[in-house]
Amino acid sequence: MYGSFHFSTIMATMPKLIILSNDADEYTRLIQQADLPDLEIVSDPAECDIALGEPRRIRDALPLLPRLRWAQSIYAGAEPMVDTAQRRDYVLTNARGVFGELMSEYVFGYMLAHEKNIFERFKSQQARKWDRTESGLLRGKTLGLLGVGSIGSHLAGTAKHFGMTVWGYTRGSETSKQVDRYFHPLDSDSLLSGTQEQTPAIQRFAQGLDYLVVVLPRTKDTDKIVDANLLDALPSHAVLINVGRGNAVDESALVEALEQEKIAGAVLDVTEQEPLPEEHPFWTTKNLLLTFHTSALSYPEDITKLFIENYRLYIEGKTLKYQVDFERGY
Amino acid sequence: MYGSFHFSTIMATMPKLIILSNDADEYTRLIQQADLPDLEIVSDPAECDIALGEPRRIRDALPLLPRLRWAQSIYAGAEPMVDTAQRRDYVLTNARGVFGELMSEYVFGYMLAHEKNIFERFKSQQARKWDRTESGLLRGKTLGLLGVGSIGSHLAGTAKHFGMTVWGYTRGSETSKQVDRYFHPLDSDSLLSGTQEQTPAIQRFAQGLDYLVVVLPRTKDTDKIVDANLLDALPSHAVLINVGRGNAVDESALVEALEQEKIAGAVLDVTEQEPLPEEHPFWTTKNLLLTFHTSALSYPEDITKLFIENYRLYIEGKTLKYQVDFERGY
Repeated sequence: MYGSFHFSTIMATMPKLIILSNDADEYTRLIQQADLPDLEIVSDPAECDIALGEPRRIRDALPLLPRLRWAQSIYAGAEPMVDTAQRRDYVLTNARGVFGELMSEYVFGYMLAHEKNIFERFKSQQARKWDRTESGLLRGKTLGLLGVGSIGSHLAGTAKHFGMTVWGYTRGSETSKQVDRYFHPLDSDSLLSGTQEQTPAIQRFAQGLDYLVVVLPRTKDTDKIVDANLLDALPSHAVLINVGRGNAVDESALVEALEQEKIAGAVLDVTEQEPLPEEHPFWTTKNLLLTFHTSALSYPEDITKLFIENYRLYIEGKTLKYQVDFERGY
Repeated sequence: MYGSFHFSTIMATMPKLIILSNDADEYTRLIQQADLPDLEIVSDPAECDIALGEPRRIRDALPLLPRLRWAQSIYAGAEPMVDTAQRRDYVLTNARGVFGELMSEYVFGYMLAHEKNIFERFKSQQARKWDRTESGLLRGKTLGLLGVGSIGSHLAGTAKHFGMTVWGYTRGSETSKQVDRYFHPLDSDSLLSGTQEQTPAIQRFAQGLDYLVVVLPRTKDTDKIVDANLLDALPSHAVLINVGRGNAVDESALVEALEQEKIAGAVLDVTEQEPLPEEHPFWTTKNLLLTFHTSALSYPEDITKLFIENYRLYIEGKTLKYQVDFERGY
């Protein structure tokens, strides 16, 4: 296709893409179908300047990719690639803006299951009991987002659709207009003298919540951010949902909070170790539901759209979107 | 209808309200708090011209309400009052516009529970199995509304938020703009000659659905509208949800469809007989979930808003909103 000698000078700089993914066939089909200008899909790592795939697979291939200038992760989290032991002499972009609607389905599915007593109703049915226990409503309740990036913003929009109040705790800027109230790590901590104000911002945030949804990336700053103090600050009817990364939760503190009914429940899509070890207490912790890192899959149709958008910027020499800051880690 | 009053007669005709409800104390408090002009809350049925309450309780009191001019049902369904054996010499209004958001929480809770395999994941957890089975998505699926009134329109809006396609089957007009495609009882039936077009509109509607949600009032026209033919027309992966009235479903046909896996599941908030008789097959029908008529409660705060809105029209002699057509039955 590109064999004509007229294009010999273009050939020298023609972008070459290697696909390093379990869904390589699907990505190849979708990208070929897009008929992107000049792009060639190659299988020899030595000649490619672009890589697309699972971060772990790209990371493993890094020593074989001398010409790499841009890597597109098909996941939001690209931890294996931002590891300080790895080279950082290329632009890393991740998948952003595509997981919000998937996460919304998951988070609202579990929140509604909780309000509607879906498990309890089924038990009543099994007992042939006409169970008219009143269901709860999301309407009027408060959702707290621990992390307000692109996924958090989407969750906020769905929460508003259901008539909820949304609070956000973030060290970043207040970009989502759907968040009714923001809390920041340094908010007035130690600045004011009133005892009330000496409560850390994250605990003041937690005290007002019905649901705490964790949407944080794995970084050293997010390690065990959901600790015993935070769990103590949550009201006893609150439910914790973690769709970010397992490192954010102090797992022993969570087991204790649930067993002692300091909070009403937890739904964990992620855990510190995955798969969860067989002897881990989470399998049987009271009011804890595990979902095995299935909350949002990476769909090639979604990721290919991001890749195409960035490829057009790439060949024009423009700044790519969705860049990962190696230092920050996301 | 409510001819305007002369000033001198206003006192003589000062509106008198009787509250006939299990939540009478709450309604009394809310209505008194609203401080409506001229309104007096009375306990003697003989002197009241307005009644508010559960339709069954108002129906039972009808012989004692000689001056009744307006009755406000606190439910959407007011079947006991539209019964042909009852008098119809007053204006009957029902609760409309308030159940849509409540029904949305219920319907989307159960649809998301189905997509996210919430019950299956819990079984995996109990078996200590790291279950990475792929979850489904509402995004891209088609929701069919059997009945597109105020509740159906609200469901359509939530469906669009989740990226679904919405089809509506209604004998009424196409009032909801969130419905992508409408089907009507008389659509081309017997008008065109092609065999394809001889399929009744309701079956062509059913054939394209992932979810069929029944939001119909109880009338003679809705009796067993979900029959064996309709269930046969649904794809085998489809799920039926009935939040309307139990009469709409042919219960034997549904048991057969579920046991033979002609459809994937059913969620019934309503049944022909409530409470469900202890020997009814629904208690143990495969892939059937019962929720005991709890999908949308009537909240005094919501209903009082409607009552206040209508009361202001009433004292101005204007046409009331949310009127029930006694002949049509809703």
